[in-house]
Amino acid sequence: MPETTSEFDRGIALTPHPEEPGRYDGELGEGWQIGGGVNGGLLLAFAAHALALEAGPGHPHPLTVSGTYVSPSRPGPATVRTEIMRRGRTLATGSAVLSQDGEERLRVTAAFTDLAALDDEVATTAVPPVLPAPEQCIGIEHAPKELIAQAALLERMDLRLDPATVGWALGQPSKEGRIQGWFKLADGRPADPLSLLLTADALPPVTFDLGRPGWAPTIELTVHLRALPADGWLRVSHATRNVAGGYFEEDCEIWDADGRLVAQSRQLAKTPR
Amino acid sequence: MPETTSEFDRGIALTPHPEEPGRYDGELGEGWQIGGGVNGGLLLAFAAHALALEAGPGHPHPLTVSGTYVSPSRPGPATVRTEIMRRGRTLATGSAVLSQDGEERLRVTAAFTDLAALDDEVATTAVPPVLPAPEQCIGIEHAPKELIAQAALLERMDLRLDPATVGWALGQPSKEGRIQGWFKLADGRPADPLSLLLTADALPPVTFDLGRPGWAPTIELTVHLRALPADGWLRVSHATRNVAGGYFEEDCEIWDADGRLVAQSRQLAKTPR
Repeated sequence: MPETTSEFDRGIALTPHPEEPGRYDGELGEGWQIGGGVNGGLLLAFAAHALALEAGPGHPHPLTVSGTYVSPSRPGPATVRTEIMRRGRTLATGSAVLSQDGEERLRVTAAFTDLAALDDEVATTAVPPVLPAPEQCIGIEHAPKELIAQAALLERMDLRLDPATVGWALGQPSKEGRIQGWFKLADGRPADPLSLLLTADALPPVTFDLGRPGWAPTIELTVHLRALPADGWLRVSHATRNVAGGYFEEDCEIWDADGRLVAQSRQLAKTPR
Repeated sequence: MPETTSEFDRGIALTPHPEEPGRYDGELGEGWQIGGGVNGGLLLAFAAHALALEAGPGHPHPLTVSGTYVSPSRPGPATVRTEIMRRGRTLATGSAVLSQDGEERLRVTAAFTDLAALDDEVATTAVPPVLPAPEQCIGIEHAPKELIAQAALLERMDLRLDPATVGWALGQPSKEGRIQGWFKLADGRPADPLSLLLTADALPPVTFDLGRPGWAPTIELTVHLRALPADGWLRVSHATRNVAGGYFEEDCEIWDADGRLVAQSRQLAKTPR
C-alpha cells in the first residue's frame, strides 16, 4: 500500500486471500478505538470495502449498508468473507461476515450501485442543520482528556460541534436529544461513500445530550448513501426520539458542502446506564 | 396447523425441514400480493418467523430486522435457511436467506430478545400522529377497484387512512410526503412483533402523496421493534424527506393503543416513474 494513503484508507485496507475467493484480510487499527472496542462505523466501512471490491464494475458504491453487531471487536487482525447474492444492471447485493480469530463481529448486507449515474432529480424537503461557522464551534482540543483517552477515534477527525449541543461537556446537557456539528477527516482525505459510513457513527452518542454519558453499544446500524459527497466540510446531525426499554434509536443525517443530503442512517443502541 | 389460525399466521406458516437443520419451508400466499409481487413486509415477517423459531428460549421476539431485497418474489413455495450467529444472555443474532426455486429473494439479519423483559423506562419524546377517529377515516371500500385488483394485500387488513393524507386518491395529493391512518388485521388477529413487520410496509407508498402513483420496489427495509403492542388499533405514519436520484426513504412509525411507539422502520425504495 502506498505511503501516501490516508489514515482512513489504511484503516480499511484489505488484502485478498490468495486461496479463498471472496475473502479479505486486514487489521483493525488502535487509532479507531472507542471505549475499548473499535468504532462501529469503521467496522461497517471495513466490511463494505470488501463487498465493494467484489461487487464489480458498474456497482462501485454502497447504496444501503446494514450491519448487525454480533460481538465486541478489538484492535488486531480481522477477516471479511463476502458473498455476492446478485449482480444486476443497476444494483448488486451482497453479504459479508467480519470476524476476528474465527469469532464473528459483524454481519452486513448491502446493495451497491453507481452513485455517479443516478438521475439528477433532487426533491429533498429535509433541511440541513443550522450551525455556527466551524471556527465558532467546539473542536476536540476542548474535550476532556479522559474522553480522548477512551476515544482515539476522535484524533482521526476534525469534528467541530455546535456549542448549543455540547452543554453536556460542562454538565449542562440540553436534554433535547440532539448533537450536531461539522466533520472532516483530520488528514484532509476527501469524503466518499465508504468514509460516510464512518461519519454516520463518529459523533458522541446522542444520549450525552440527554444527560446520560457513557458508551452506547450499537445493536444495528443501517446507512443509506444517497449521493457522492462534494469536497469540503460535512454537516452532521444526530437525534433521538424514542429512548425506551433500555434502547434508543439514533438518526443521523450527513449534508455535504453543496447542501445535499448525502447520507441518512439509523441505529439501535443500548442506552447507557 | 389448526384451522383457527389467522390469515397472517397462515401467511407466515413454516414447516421445519426433516433433514436440513435450520431450514423451513412455507408458501407465499396469493392474498399477500401487491403489484404482481409479494408484499415486502410479509416477506420480512416470513423470514423473521424462521429466525424466531431458531433463536431459542429467552429470545422470542425480533428487536431489529434488516432485509435487503435481492429479486422479486411471487406467490408459491418458499424456503428460509437460517443461521444463528450468537445466542447471548439477552440478545441472539441471526441471518436468513429466503429463496424460491433456488433463487434468493431476500437476505435478512436480525437481533432477537425478550421484549416482555425490557426495562420499564419510557422517555420517548416523539408524539403519535393526530388522526380523526377510525370511523371518520377512509377504508378500502373507497379505494379504486384497479388498486384493489393489484393489491390483494389490502383485503387482509382493516386500514383507515386519514382523509388529510388521501387526496391523492382523488388526484389531489397533499405533496407533503405523508400518509397516515389506523391499522388492524382484517380477521382481528392481535398485533405482535412479527405482524408489526408487515404493518411497517403495508400502507401505499408515501410517494402517492407526492403525486407519484405507482409501486415503489423496496431495496432495503429495517424495522426496530421496541415494545409488545397493546391490543387494539395501531396508528401508523409514513413520511419521506429525501426524494432524490431516483430513490426515496420511507420512515414508518407504529403506535399502539396505549400510546407507545412500538415500532420504527425505514426503507429505501425506488421512486415510481
